[in-house]
This record gives sequence, C-alpha cells and structure tokens, in this order.
Amino acid sequence: MGVKLGILGLGTVGTGTVQLLQDKAGRHPLLQEIEIYRVGVRSLDKHRTVELSTEVLTTDLESIVNDPAVDIVVEVMGGLEPARSLILKALSNGKHVVTANKAAIARFGAEIFTTANQAGVYVMLEAAVGGGIPVIQPLKQSLSVNRIHTVTGIVNGTTNYILTRMQTEGSNFSDVLADAQRLGYAEADPTADVDGLDAADKIAILASLSFGGRINLQDVYTEGIRQVSKTDIAYAEKLGFVIKLLAIAKRDTPSSPLSVRVHPTLVPQAHPLASINGVYNAILVEGEPIGQVMFFGPGAGAGATASAVTSDILNLVAVLKTNTAVANPLIACGHQEYCQIAPMAELRTRFYARFLTNDQPGVIGKLGTCFGNYGVSLESIVQTGFQGELAEIVVVTHDVREGNFRQALAEIRDLSAIESIPSLLRVL
Amino acid sequence: MGVKLGILGLGTVGTGTVQLLQDKAGRHPLLQEIEIYRVGVRSLDKHRTVELSTEVLTTDLESIVNDPAVDIVVEVMGGLEPARSLILKALSNGKHVVTANKAAIARFGAEIFTTANQAGVYVMLEAAVGGGIPVIQPLKQSLSVNRIHTVTGIVNGTTNYILTRMQTEGSNFSDVLADAQRLGYAEADPTADVDGLDAADKIAILASLSFGGRINLQDVYTEGIRQVSKTDIAYAEKLGFVIKLLAIAKRDTPSSPLSVRVHPTLVPQAHPLASINGVYNAILVEGEPIGQVMFFGPGAGAGATASAVTSDILNLVAVLKTNTAVANPLIACGHQEYCQIAPMAELRTRFYARFLTNDQPGVIGKLGTCFGNYGVSLESIVQTGFQGELAEIVVVTHDVREGNFRQALAEIRDLSAIESIPSLLRVL
Repeated sequence: MGVKLGILGLGTVGTGTVQLLQDKAGRHPLLQEIEIYRVGVRSLDKHRTVELSTEVLTTDLESIVNDPAVDIVVEVMGGLEPARSLILKALSNGKHVVTANKAAIARFGAEIFTTANQAGVYVMLEAAVGGGIPVIQPLKQSLSVNRIHTVTGIVNGTTNYILTRMQTEGSNFSDVLADAQRLGYAEADPTADVDGLDAADKIAILASLSFGGRINLQDVYTEGIRQVSKTDIAYAEKLGFVIKLLAIAKRDTPSSPLSVRVHPTLVPQAHPLASINGVYNAILVEGEPIGQVMFFGPGAGAGATASAVTSDILNLVAVLKTNTAVANPLIACGHQEYCQIAPMAELRTRFYARFLTNDQPGVIGKLGTCFGNYGVSLESIVQTGFQGELAEIVVVTHDVREGNFRQALAEIRDLSAIESIPSLLRVL
Repeated sequence: MGVKLGILGLGTVGTGTVQLLQDKAGRHPLLQEIEIYRVGVRSLDKHRTVELSTEVLTTDLESIVNDPAVDIVVEVMGGLEPARSLILKALSNGKHVVTANKAAIARFGAEIFTTANQAGVYVMLEAAVGGGIPVIQPLKQSLSVNRIHTVTGIVNGTTNYILTRMQTEGSNFSDVLADAQRLGYAEADPTADVDGLDAADKIAILASLSFGGRINLQDVYTEGIRQVSKTDIAYAEKLGFVIKLLAIAKRDTPSSPLSVRVHPTLVPQAHPLASINGVYNAILVEGEPIGQVMFFGPGAGAGATASAVTSDILNLVAVLKTNTAVANPLIACGHQEYCQIAPMAELRTRFYARFLTNDQPGVIGKLGTCFGNYGVSLESIVQTGFQGELAEIVVVTHDVREGNFRQALAEIRDLSAIESIPSLLRVL
C-alpha cells in the first residue's frame, strides 16, 4: 500500500468517501495505492454503514494529524473548530490536506494557505464549492490563462430547490421551506442556506481563485431569499425572468475593485442559469478570451461530494508518484494580497422594485420624477394590479449606480402616495 | 525566459495562441516564463495580424521539432500529415506536445501516446474537444474516480447552429447550410461537420478518456444531419423533443462492450442538452457516484481554442517547474488496450420513424403487427396528417434492440400499404 490517509469525520461525506475508496473495481487503478489508515470519529459506539477495522477508527483526532505515517489528511468533519486547528497542524506536520470545508476555507484561508506554502504541501478543496462539479481545478488549471471578469453561480442547492418549487407551484417561501425541511432538502436550522451565508463562503472561494487574491468574507454583501415572495416570482415571470439566488464576483476592468455579492436576482429566462432547477448547482465563468463556460451538476449529496474529495485525494497521490519536493504553481495557492472590494453603493446593476401606492392620479409621474432626480433611468414602469385598496406598481430600471437608486428610493418612501415598498431585487 | 515553445502553424488557432501569449497583463504570472521561440509557417510572405521577429518564423517545421532548445511543441496546423509525423518526431526528441488536432489524435492516438510514454513526455489535447470548454482535464483528473457510464455531447458547433436555425425558422437543411457557409459558420466543403465525422473524432477521444481504453475510429457509427428534415423537426417539437446531433459513448455495465456513435437524436425538451443552441457545445458526463455533470461553452473560435491550447502549455510549464522526470499518472495516458465496441444491431434505444402510407383502413394495425412480430414495443403511433394523397404516420418506440427494429422495418417496407419511410431517427 502506498499512500496513507487520515480521515477526519465519518458523517455523510466521510462515509461516502470511505465507500468509494473501498469499492475500487472499475475505477482508476491508482485508487489501489490508497490505504484508509486512520479515521477520526466522535464516538466509537455509533453504528456505521461502512466496515472499518477497530485499529482504523479513533476518537483522538489530534493523533491522526500528528501521526508521521499519515501522508494525506482528509478533513470532512465540517464546522470551524476543531477543523481549523487540525488542518493547520496537519499542514505544519508536512501533510497534504483535502477538505470539503467551505466555511473554514472562506474564513481561515489566509492562514491555511500560508501554512501550506511554508510547509510545501497542498490544500485541495474541490468539494468545497459545487459538490461534485469540477470547478476548482478548472479555474486553477484549465482556465488559468484567461482574464476572468465574472463568476456567477447558483451554488446553494437548498435555496435553488425552494425557489424552483415556489416558481412551479406558486407557493409561499415559508410553506416550501417547511416542506423542504420535512423532506431533508433543508436543515432544521436553515439559516446558513436561506440567508445566503453558505453561498457567500463559496463565492469568496471562487472569487479568490478567479481573481488571484484573498477575499475578506466580511466584504461579501449577503442577502438571502426569505423576503422573496410568490407575488414577485409571478411578476418576474410575466416580465421574462426567473428569480434565483445568485453568487456573483465581477471585475469590470483589470484595475477596478471587485464586486462580490450574494442576493436573489431576476435572471432573464434565456440566460444559461435560468434553467438550472431544483438542487442542481451551476457556475458560469466569463473571461477573455474564453467567453462563457458553465459547469453544471449536483451541488451536494454524499456521492457527488465524495467524488470531489476522492478525486482530490487521487490527484495528490498522482503528484506524490512524481517524487518531487517542488510545488506545482498551478496547484499551490500563489496569491497573498487581499482583493479590493467595491462598496455596494458603487455597484452598477438593474433593479426591480414593487410599490404599493394610493391609487391617485400622477403617482407614476411622481415616481418617475424622483428616479430622474438621481439619474435613475427606467426600463419599464407598470401598474400591475391591486392589493386591496392599494395599486401595485412594478419598476425595472436600466443599469444604475446602486447608491443613486437608494437615494431615489429614500425620497420615494417619503411621498404621501407611497404606502410601502414591499420588494426590491436586483436584475442580472 | 524559461520555457521555449515551438509552434507549428499560424492559422486561426495559432494566431489566437500567439496573441494570448503576447498579452500577458492580468493573466497568470507563470505566462511570463514562456518564450515563443519558433513558429513554423507555410509562407514567410503572408501578412500576419501578430508581430513576430524574423528569427522566430520559419518554413522549416522539421527544424522546430528537432531543435534541442525547444521544450514544448504546440501543433496547431491541423490535418493528418505532416502533423502526425511532426508530433511523433517531437515526442521522440523528448518534447512535450500540445495539440488541438482531434483528427490526428482520433486516428493516430495509439502510436502518439505510445511514443509519448516511451519518451516520458506528455501529450495535452484540451483544445481537441469542445474548443475552450475544460472537459479533457476534468475527465482525466477531477472525475477520475468515477465509474463513467455515459458521455453525451453536442460537440460540433456547425451542425448545432444549422439544427438550431432549422428549428427556430422552420427552414430546410440545404437553405440553412448555404446561409451558414455565407456567414462563415460552415466551411465550403461541409462534409466533416454535417456528416458527423468531426463529432466522431471527438467522441472517440472522449470515450477513450472516460472508459480507459483505446477506440478504433472505424468502430464509431457515424450518421450526419443531411437527412434531417424540417418536417421531422416540427413533429419532434409536437412530441416534446428537439433534434440534436449527439455524440454518445455508453457502457451499460462495467463488463459490457461500449456503444460509441454519432447520429441525429430526438432529445426530450427538458433534458439539459436540449437547450444548448447555436454554435455552443456541451458535454454531459454521467457516472457513479457523481451523477450528471455538464460542461458548456464555446466549441470553436480562435479565442476559446487559444484558451485551451495556452492552458495546456501553462500546465506543462507548471509541471516542468516541479523538476521531476517521473510522469504524473493522471496526466499521462495510461491505457493501451482497445475498448470492445458493440455492433449497432445490439444497441438498445428508442426510435422515431415516419411512414408515408396509402390511406387505407388497417394500416396502423399492420404496422403494429410487424413491430410486434419482432418484439418492438411502441410508445406512440399517430397519424399526423397528409402529404398529398399519402397519409403520414409517426411512430415512437420504447427501448428496443436496434437489430430487431431493423428487421421489423424490412418487413414493413414490403407492405403494399407503405409507400416510403422517409425518416428514421433515434430517441434519447
């Protein structure tokens, strides 16, 4: 047996990875050189669906990252601590690390990659974004010569599942969420998914790889889907859009600051991301000279994620076979500077807004005047119907500076004719 | 300057590659270590859109592959000879090769990879399939642990452009082809594209990588789109399908022979490949445990193809930096056996057939009886309309053995009620 793995965690992903590694027939022959040497778990008594001998299982995770025999540490336990400390210790001890932990990478990437570079080892993280979809390696290697200008992803399966069902069934967010929880598509505490935090971790990682700099997670503007209503989904559909939770990283010119953000977005129906439904994920990369390329597939699930984790392991085994101590600069993490992130007020984007107004003559004119005062040019303004006594007006703008739009909105909010502004969404 | 390139050919792809290599700002810093050392062209007098000094340009292509100073040979001249001989000589001389030449790889892959392995060098071919879309490297590396069972691609932009226009405009094949030639989307001699030969080269390469064996190009069943009529496109649409030229490689069980084929196919409208339109390409890979992943992007064009060629170059430069003489088994070509390919008669698939019949009672019954005699079970049989005096009947079968279907068809052809069978297409 050639390469010894120390696996941290035997939950869904860990179990999927062990199953894949134990079922080698018909897969790449290099898998035969991998030994599951230690697996760290919380309890030895729990019933497992995989068979592992008692010498392999241990509750002492520290002993795994400190064991000189371990070549590669596979961190599939999730969470911030002790995952972070164990990863750092493994790297300091000269072990390569494979991780599926987007939260830890998005927060502690700087110290993790610095430690890895000092130790001359690799951190592989294909499973951290897009589940089984190959996107990390393509960005690092196959697309590496491009000047990337935009990465746009549907990177959270739970929210895409909820939005897809709201769209097809005309249902409310809270009803679909409750059903998704019952079916296991959403967690009991859905915060990380529905508030966009998981997507923010992932776009921070993708932006870092695409634009060659570190990303401060606090700089990522994050807005979830709780406020997306079935009313807006219906209006969006009439206007030729679907509503998706998009994670976007964009740089207008090579010298301008990045925009990195997560928010529900009206996507034109003909756009490649508009037809990505259910729990599927897709990442659209745009650059020069490549144009548009999109990666589509299962964004979660034991098997898909295990595919990514195990492929990372196999890639490390292949590198170990080449018997070199010099790092491959496309696989190692090269950048150390932080990317400059533009404040949201500077974003140029289209907006969709819905207003409830007293049905009095001239209200559309007043709206138009307020927008005009701040240079906000409108693509359409439509009185769409009534909610009780109140008239409902939907506005779609041309590309505007977000700061200007917000100023116009503040002025509009003070108009006596305006009852409320129930919805405000960005448009791709 | 670190790594010296010898580029063979300065046509569309060669020029795109040189442009990219000369425009390094904002791209991967490793590009700075690459020197365009020699470029082989047919004529020194031709006007070029890229500037290269006179010492770099030469008409002596042999001198490039024999020059000890050249580290990497980039073959972007296309065609079978002298491309094949120059690639083989470069490899024998210990140079890594990057090529975009699907025709040469599909035909001479066996001797090319054998020579490369003997010399301990790599052959990189990302640009050979799917233009700029990263699919070769993902198959070799990111998906390497999967048991792939199906690869289904729209891998020829010209035919997809023609079929898309036939669909949206309701036009004839010959009219759209003529217009595509005028617009530069189809070549003056469109044979390689419209007869499926280019797609056959590409699926042979994808099948070889996905199933870990060599593919004999003669074994690839190849049928083009000349016989696809606007009538069939319209009927397909009514039945819930679009017609696409698909390249398919499939293995039902790990021990069964492969099916590798190119043919126009009715694709269900909800299938991920159904919405790939125009000159775009997409490759859908299905395997265990990954499920479905799809790679989408520009299948041709100078910029996109140059992105793939240059990324291959950059990956080689990165490997050269690691200073090892031992090959990475995931990048090198490991397999030497030929895959066993199943004869088309053994294929199990659905069929769409259109019959012109004399409008006499009982003809549907007779058709049904003939199919029944050979175990062909029908999903639908519909009299759709009239062509002059003749009634038009469209049949869609369930999955059947192609051999049985053909036998039934031979018997049907002899029925006095049957005037002709103008269309016969497979259904995904």
